[in-house]
Amino acid sequence: MQPRFGLTADLIFSREIPDELRPELDRAVEEANTVIFRKGVPKDAPTDEIGLITGYAIAGPVLTVTFESGGYTRAHDALFRFRKQIAGLFGRHRIGLREIVVVHFRVELRGEVPEGLLLASLPFVRSAEVEPDRIVLELAVTAADLENRIPDRLIRLVEEKTEAAVYGGKGEHWELLYESPKRGFRFREDPTQEMIRRGWIKHALSRGQWIHGPQSTRLFRAFEALVLEEIVGPLGFAEMIFPKLVPWEVWVKSGHAKGVYPEIYYVSVPKTRDPAYWEDVADHFKVTGEVPVDMIREKIDGPIGGLCYAQCPSFWPFLGGATLTNDSLPARVFDRSGTSHRYESGGIHGIERVDEFHRIELLWLGTPEQTVETADLLHERYRRLFDEVLELEWRSARVTPWFMAQEGMLGGEGASERIGTTDYEAYLPYSDSWLEFQNVSVNGDKYPRGFNVKVQSGGDLWSGCSGIGLERWTAAFLAQKGFDLDDWPAGIRRRFGDAHEIFRFV
Amino acid sequence: MQPRFGLTADLIFSREIPDELRPELDRAVEEANTVIFRKGVPKDAPTDEIGLITGYAIAGPVLTVTFESGGYTRAHDALFRFRKQIAGLFGRHRIGLREIVVVHFRVELRGEVPEGLLLASLPFVRSAEVEPDRIVLELAVTAADLENRIPDRLIRLVEEKTEAAVYGGKGEHWELLYESPKRGFRFREDPTQEMIRRGWIKHALSRGQWIHGPQSTRLFRAFEALVLEEIVGPLGFAEMIFPKLVPWEVWVKSGHAKGVYPEIYYVSVPKTRDPAYWEDVADHFKVTGEVPVDMIREKIDGPIGGLCYAQCPSFWPFLGGATLTNDSLPARVFDRSGTSHRYESGGIHGIERVDEFHRIELLWLGTPEQTVETADLLHERYRRLFDEVLELEWRSARVTPWFMAQEGMLGGEGASERIGTTDYEAYLPYSDSWLEFQNVSVNGDKYPRGFNVKVQSGGDLWSGCSGIGLERWTAAFLAQKGFDLDDWPAGIRRRFGDAHEIFRFV
Repeated sequence: MQPRFGLTADLIFSREIPDELRPELDRAVEEANTVIFRKGVPKDAPTDEIGLITGYAIAGPVLTVTFESGGYTRAHDALFRFRKQIAGLFGRHRIGLREIVVVHFRVELRGEVPEGLLLASLPFVRSAEVEPDRIVLELAVTAADLENRIPDRLIRLVEEKTEAAVYGGKGEHWELLYESPKRGFRFREDPTQEMIRRGWIKHALSRGQWIHGPQSTRLFRAFEALVLEEIVGPLGFAEMIFPKLVPWEVWVKSGHAKGVYPEIYYVSVPKTRDPAYWEDVADHFKVTGEVPVDMIREKIDGPIGGLCYAQCPSFWPFLGGATLTNDSLPARVFDRSGTSHRYESGGIHGIERVDEFHRIELLWLGTPEQTVETADLLHERYRRLFDEVLELEWRSARVTPWFMAQEGMLGGEGASERIGTTDYEAYLPYSDSWLEFQNVSVNGDKYPRGFNVKVQSGGDLWSGCSGIGLERWTAAFLAQKGFDLDDWPAGIRRRFGDAHEIFRFV
Repeated sequence: MQPRFGLTADLIFSREIPDELRPELDRAVEEANTVIFRKGVPKDAPTDEIGLITGYAIAGPVLTVTFESGGYTRAHDALFRFRKQIAGLFGRHRIGLREIVVVHFRVELRGEVPEGLLLASLPFVRSAEVEPDRIVLELAVTAADLENRIPDRLIRLVEEKTEAAVYGGKGEHWELLYESPKRGFRFREDPTQEMIRRGWIKHALSRGQWIHGPQSTRLFRAFEALVLEEIVGPLGFAEMIFPKLVPWEVWVKSGHAKGVYPEIYYVSVPKTRDPAYWEDVADHFKVTGEVPVDMIREKIDGPIGGLCYAQCPSFWPFLGGATLTNDSLPARVFDRSGTSHRYESGGIHGIERVDEFHRIELLWLGTPEQTVETADLLHERYRRLFDEVLELEWRSARVTPWFMAQEGMLGGEGASERIGTTDYEAYLPYSDSWLEFQNVSVNGDKYPRGFNVKVQSGGDLWSGCSGIGLERWTAAFLAQKGFDLDDWPAGIRRRFGDAHEIFRFV
């Protein structure tokens, strides 16, 4: 959208501005409008797009200045250029600039505006007019807010909301990449129900959470062994341990802080670990037999962050701020050291949708070409694994948010058009539907940029990741293969071994 | 301590109590005092210890009754016996009991009282007198509180605080069980510092949290392989997956709710996962670049519980409420599926004291004899592992809270005296100190009782657990063996393989 800015600010000085400075001030404004505000502006930029002082007045120690601009040397940038200029000028007369008070800041965005856009409650917005062909925002901002690039971020947010209003309802663009051979199915039940019936799993006491008995765990470990032997080993992924509690700083840098909030399990810490501070909570429990949640709520700080959601962001502080040698690339690592947690929509789901789950996360870095090559090698090996070893009916598809697909934001040539995610889906005979059971993503420079990681060559550093969800593999495999081990492919039957029963009940 | 109770209650009826009922009431009180309150009381109980109605009066529809007792048919139990009796008697005259209001409830505890006991802020306590030889508590309770056994729990808590005041400062009773041969040490540095220097680990962004690079992770996995080959396999522990988010209900049943609060990482959930509800939080971040923690705090419920602290409580709902067949026992399982988290005391520690750590937890159930036998088999195998494979300088010691040691609470014969914990400690040359690096506990019937698990035979069901801390093993091993692989025992060098470097920095 085309922006226009209008800004009025009071520049407050250390003493009255004497009348005899008026001519110098006039010359300074003239110089600002004709020289200083034009620095760095392309020659062919329309004149009325460039920042301009359109009025100024002196009242005692206060110089009130009004700026207008389009997209070049925007009004707030013009203000700071003028500040530097005028501070130097007045400083020579021993008049110091004490403070800048923003009296008025107005942003107008011209372009097609979808209906129903709600902007009045955005941070820093004093009022908002939304018309079919323009948006006008009056902002309540300080000079520090302007220096802190609040208007830029606010405009980006408004544009994002405009896009979401246009394309948001359309979800994802879905493009089939591969479809496996069809399979015959002898088992057509819900595998979760059968796992419960056989005592393989039992509902734990928090929502979307299961306790896995020995048989279910053996199946997980059989899948894990396959991943190690068929993928991780041959492609040389080295195991690391990524932390599982994620402080805000990680999500700020990974970009998850932009929108992950509805699905997070939040983590808070004690205000102090002094046992005396907590004695009344313990006493309450000991006397009533009930945990006093409201008392605890008052005694904890935070939240400081949340539980692992995506698995790879926690890796990045290992490299944060560093420059890798060229020969470190491509680098391939993986993590399988703990649980991930998502606050999923309510109701009863099977093991294919859970709040607490187990995932093997592969992560790789390299030049754009190396990053895409690793993704291709993974696709090739996954395909062999699912077609020849696990003998599943599955497909893969490239998924792209609609507004990106629409606007050609993935455009560009070569590696760039490979940025995005490929979902792997398995057919579930019992519900005649498809289950996303893993994915492969090429993330471009998003993470290296967010965590400030560079490569010696000075070239682009990219990364990718692939999350292998063990609950999802289990759901897909059991839904298609059932519970008769004789129907299972040899590669998994052998690794599963004897279904060993530990607990028998009266 | 010797208790005495005094209770005055108003029994409020549906209409005025007519005078002509007075003789029947007198007879009922006489019967209560001489027959009903004596039911179930041992013959040799001192008469003044048994509940007694010491006064009663009628005022309109209200019958005010005063009860006194020592430890037999305590005043509040006497109240409910009398309620049943009088409700039946008056009911025959169509006078219904509407409500019981506790006017006054007083508990006196006689015995030696340590100085400095603070009781006035305990729940339900209206006032507390603490004297050298007695405690007098006036309680603010309802009849429902009395039925809910509030006074019993309160008295137990006061006794606990008395014990803690006497023995609390003394910490643990420590009794050496085994001491390994002395070893020579060529490395005398802090292993954490050396791991950082070599790029094996890097501080993550939350406190007490590390990211483990490939080399450190290989050492973890080498230890894990040793545990699987030398302990888990030969003793037949079957792998399970225990949940890692722990809701209150689990800690209520495991007993951790009595005091774990100062060290918990608390978990809260969104009030709703409706994206519109969270949009202002996301908008705030997008505009300011900062996560609005205070806004989030208002939008989350709970805490619903916390992160895994001890690892075994989450197992128990798998068996909760069930009765095991006799031939299920002994049962042996283990979990290594995720992280544990403790809010440790502040300051910088190495990997030997961390907030987020990785532990292999062994858990077993059986008759008391089977449970102790498993513990003994573990001790034997651990000893061989540390002496012959890892070649550590270590020792084991039985640790007992002082008040338990003092009061012979572990007394009894045979298996019972084996209830408790054995700590394993390794010598740290760099600090000339000992580090607890794992433990073995025999927990008696604590968990089966808490989670209502029974055995077919009707006999005692016990359990035990042993936590193998991989960070602690690593700290102990590297502190003694250093970083020159030629100095490492063959069994670990072989499993560690080549120290593979993935990331090199400019």
